[in-house]
Amino acid sequence: MRLTLHADYALRMLVYLAVRPDAAVTTAEIGEAYGISKHHLVRVAHTLKRAGYIVIAPGRNGGLALAKSPADIRIGQVVKKVEPDLDLVECFAGKGSACPITSVCALGGALGEALAAFLSTLDRYTLADVIADSGPTLAGLLVPADALRPARRKRA
Amino acid sequence: MRLTLHADYALRMLVYLAVRPDAAVTTAEIGEAYGISKHHLVRVAHTLKRAGYIVIAPGRNGGLALAKSPADIRIGQVVKKVEPDLDLVECFAGKGSACPITSVCALGGALGEALAAFLSTLDRYTLADVIADSGPTLAGLLVPADALRPARRKRA
Repeated sequence: MRLTLHADYALRMLVYLAVRPDAAVTTAEIGEAYGISKHHLVRVAHTLKRAGYIVIAPGRNGGLALAKSPADIRIGQVVKKVEPDLDLVECFAGKGSACPITSVCALGGALGEALAAFLSTLDRYTLADVIADSGPTLAGLLVPADALRPARRKRA
Repeated sequence: MRLTLHADYALRMLVYLAVRPDAAVTTAEIGEAYGISKHHLVRVAHTLKRAGYIVIAPGRNGGLALAKSPADIRIGQVVKKVEPDLDLVECFAGKGSACPITSVCALGGALGEALAAFLSTLDRYTLADVIADSGPTLAGLLVPADALRPARRKRA
C-alpha cells in the first residue's frame, strides 16, 4: 500500500513552497532539489493549482507559490484531493467491481472506515506543522544558496 | 493508494474459508469463485500459512482450512502480515530513501500515525464480524452447489 508518486510529489512540492515563501519557484528548481522528474512536477503543479493550493504565475519572472497560508493547508485534505486512486481494493470502484460478493461483504465497509481514519489523522496536521520545527533546516537542505538571492526569478 | 493484490486476495481467501468451515478447499475452487488467478492464490496461501492463519493439508483429499477461529483473526493484523509493502512513501524505506529531507521532514511521522490509525481501525473487526450478517448469502454467492457435498475433496 503506497501513495502514488503524484501524491508524494505534491506533498513535497508544498513543503518546498512553504520553506520558500518569498519567491516564485520553478518546477525545474523543485525537481533538482528532490532529484525527481521536472515533467512529472509540471503535472503535479496543475493538480495543486486546480485544487486551489498554489498559484502559477506565467512569464520570465513567473513561477509557483502557495495560494494560501501553510496553516490553512491540511495534509489529509491535500491527499484526498491529489491522490488519483483511493480505491483501496477492487470493490471500492463500486458497480465496476468484478468481485462476486461486493454487495454483501463487510470488508469494504471496514476498509472504508480505516481510510477515513487515515485521512482524519493526517488532517490533524497542517503544512505549517510539518515545517514548524525544521523550516530553516529544510530550506538549507532543499534550496541552492544562489536561488535565495531575491533578484533571481525563473519561469515555471 | 491501494492494497496490493496479494493482500486483497489474502482477505478474500480468508472470507472464503470462513464461509466454508466444514471442508478442505482448493485454490482452484477459490480462484473460480472470485474469477482470479489460481497461481497467485497458491502464493497467497503460503503467505497465510506462514502467518499462521491457515493450514494446508497435502494429498488428494487435502486442501486449505482456517488454522484458527474467525473470531480470533483480526483484519488489521492480517493486512500488516500479508501486505508486502506498507511503505506509504519513499522515505518510509529509511536509509534507502533518496529524498534529501528525510531526516528532518515531519511528513513521515504524520503518515506513520495515519497508517497506525488505518490498521487499528481494521483491528476493530475480526473475520467473524466480516461474515456475521451474511455468512449463508456469501456461501451461496461463492461456493458452487456441488462443492457443498461433503464427499467432494480436491487437492490444494
